[in-house]
Amino acid sequence: MSKTIVLKQRPDGTPKNNDFEIINENQPSIKSGEILLKAKYVSVDPYLRGRMRDEESYIEPFKINKPIASTVVAEVVESKNEKYKEGDFLTGMLDWKEYQVHTGDNLRNVDGDSISLSAYLGVLGLTGLTAYFGLNRIGEPKKGETLLVSGAAGAVGSIVGQIGKIKGLRVIGIAGSDEKVSLLTDQLGFDAAINYNTTDDMAAAIKEYAPDGVDIYFDNVGSYTLDAAMKNINRFGRVINCGAISLYNETEQPTGPRLETTLVKKSVKMQGFIVRNFEEDFPEGVQQLSKWLKEGKLKHEETIVEGFDSIPQAFIDLFDGKNKGKMVVKIY
Amino acid sequence: MSKTIVLKQRPDGTPKNNDFEIINENQPSIKSGEILLKAKYVSVDPYLRGRMRDEESYIEPFKINKPIASTVVAEVVESKNEKYKEGDFLTGMLDWKEYQVHTGDNLRNVDGDSISLSAYLGVLGLTGLTAYFGLNRIGEPKKGETLLVSGAAGAVGSIVGQIGKIKGLRVIGIAGSDEKVSLLTDQLGFDAAINYNTTDDMAAAIKEYAPDGVDIYFDNVGSYTLDAAMKNINRFGRVINCGAISLYNETEQPTGPRLETTLVKKSVKMQGFIVRNFEEDFPEGVQQLSKWLKEGKLKHEETIVEGFDSIPQAFIDLFDGKNKGKMVVKIY
Repeated sequence: MSKTIVLKQRPDGTPKNNDFEIINENQPSIKSGEILLKAKYVSVDPYLRGRMRDEESYIEPFKINKPIASTVVAEVVESKNEKYKEGDFLTGMLDWKEYQVHTGDNLRNVDGDSISLSAYLGVLGLTGLTAYFGLNRIGEPKKGETLLVSGAAGAVGSIVGQIGKIKGLRVIGIAGSDEKVSLLTDQLGFDAAINYNTTDDMAAAIKEYAPDGVDIYFDNVGSYTLDAAMKNINRFGRVINCGAISLYNETEQPTGPRLETTLVKKSVKMQGFIVRNFEEDFPEGVQQLSKWLKEGKLKHEETIVEGFDSIPQAFIDLFDGKNKGKMVVKIY
Repeated sequence: MSKTIVLKQRPDGTPKNNDFEIINENQPSIKSGEILLKAKYVSVDPYLRGRMRDEESYIEPFKINKPIASTVVAEVVESKNEKYKEGDFLTGMLDWKEYQVHTGDNLRNVDGDSISLSAYLGVLGLTGLTAYFGLNRIGEPKKGETLLVSGAAGAVGSIVGQIGKIKGLRVIGIAGSDEKVSLLTDQLGFDAAINYNTTDDMAAAIKEYAPDGVDIYFDNVGSYTLDAAMKNINRFGRVINCGAISLYNETEQPTGPRLETTLVKKSVKMQGFIVRNFEEDFPEGVQQLSKWLKEGKLKHEETIVEGFDSIPQAFIDLFDGKNKGKMVVKIY
């Protein structure tokens, strides 16, 4: 038998376990040209929430009663495709299935010799590339500038801050617990970090740690955190809109202070992106991230949850910030 | 005697005539190295509203009981400075005074031989340069794209739309009367224009004229107009935040729908600017604008009000959209 996780219904607000269903299917068999894959590590990511809405976006919505898909590392357990052999590890966009049949197209080989296979879902995967291209291409960092990162202890944020330090920036993180604040300042080299759960006036807290203002704000969160950052943004500041996790479960159109006057007065750029915009430069990004990782300049922080059935809960837990670094589900 | 207009009090909401005072002074005399200037044309601009607030910005606030300043074309009526002679026309940032003494620094000579002197406050001045650099440098227009312009019949907007046509864009304007709509479509070459005063659903109206969406939105207005534009923005769209005239007289922090989710989902850039950011390239801009003007590709639309005492009212009238093109006060 082989389990599959399908979207049972579109979540209303925060996703719940009963929005998903685990169904049992017969283990599939393969034809010539195909491979049989067994999932090893499954990535859960906040952006998947968007695909659960029936709404136009940069990627099509998941369908009801069809499998969810995300980035997965899988092992080839049977191959009738000459490009791949049994025992190969591949990564790419795959269904949430224990076993699945695939042509092998749009997958790439990875190896777990020098680094954990789960790293290909984190620092060496789309997560690391999101941090790398967002900060460098949109943030245009210059040595000595101040970088503020929200969701700083999360998958992308924890890498953004570390790249910021490599680039010679002063880096301030925003995270949701004292434990995460310690992780950022004691282990990941952030200059300062703010626990938003124990901070009443976020704009004042940012000002305290960034008395000269914020040059670059890498936003994973949106909403009030963005507002507070904008109150501290410097002239010619750059806001990198990577995500807005605080808004993903909203059921009404969220409102907030209008930002256009600040944009004009301070010549600020706000720019949203998805990592696939930089797809043709992925090799450059992977090479640089691998180099920093080997040199010990970049630490690979992850939260690993175990067992195929845990995937929905791991996804739901992202919205409570239960992860430190990349949230990954390990499958046996 | 010589009149001066001072800021009597900081406007509360929409500026009123009694926020200004016209005072009479003796005609000043000049010392060695100085010139005596007589104002000929005075520019009134929405951005001046910002300087009337006691608030940090890119330029210092006007002081109470001190003269307002804006861009002016003035005649040299007496010179003790070898750089300038009687009868020269100069332009630059000058006080709202009939006569004023100046060192001549930061002013430049202009001539009215081939074009009206008032053009140096409009298409050949900061207004034209704002349109030119905002559209080109931030908008990054590509032939065949759709450009939406708000405040389209205003000083900057009317030039933006015409440059858009020169660049091969489909251009849609938003303005506040049927007369302005006709000006845009019949005289300035816009492909379509929307009268916001007779349109209930602005987002739907934009969609009607831009069925394939908006690639570039040049925003002079902010607020609801920006919201409607954002509902039609395309993937990789660029929003040029040039001004937010609809918000300049607000006394409370305006709120509206949060835009960060749209920025991320559609990889949209919003970027504010002031024209002085491009100061080192002004010669390029003036040269190009002059060339288009001579070739008849660019029309120079202006609303001329007469008499020094009319300056405050002309400024106030900007917020009611009483101008078509550049609002200029001609002084005798």
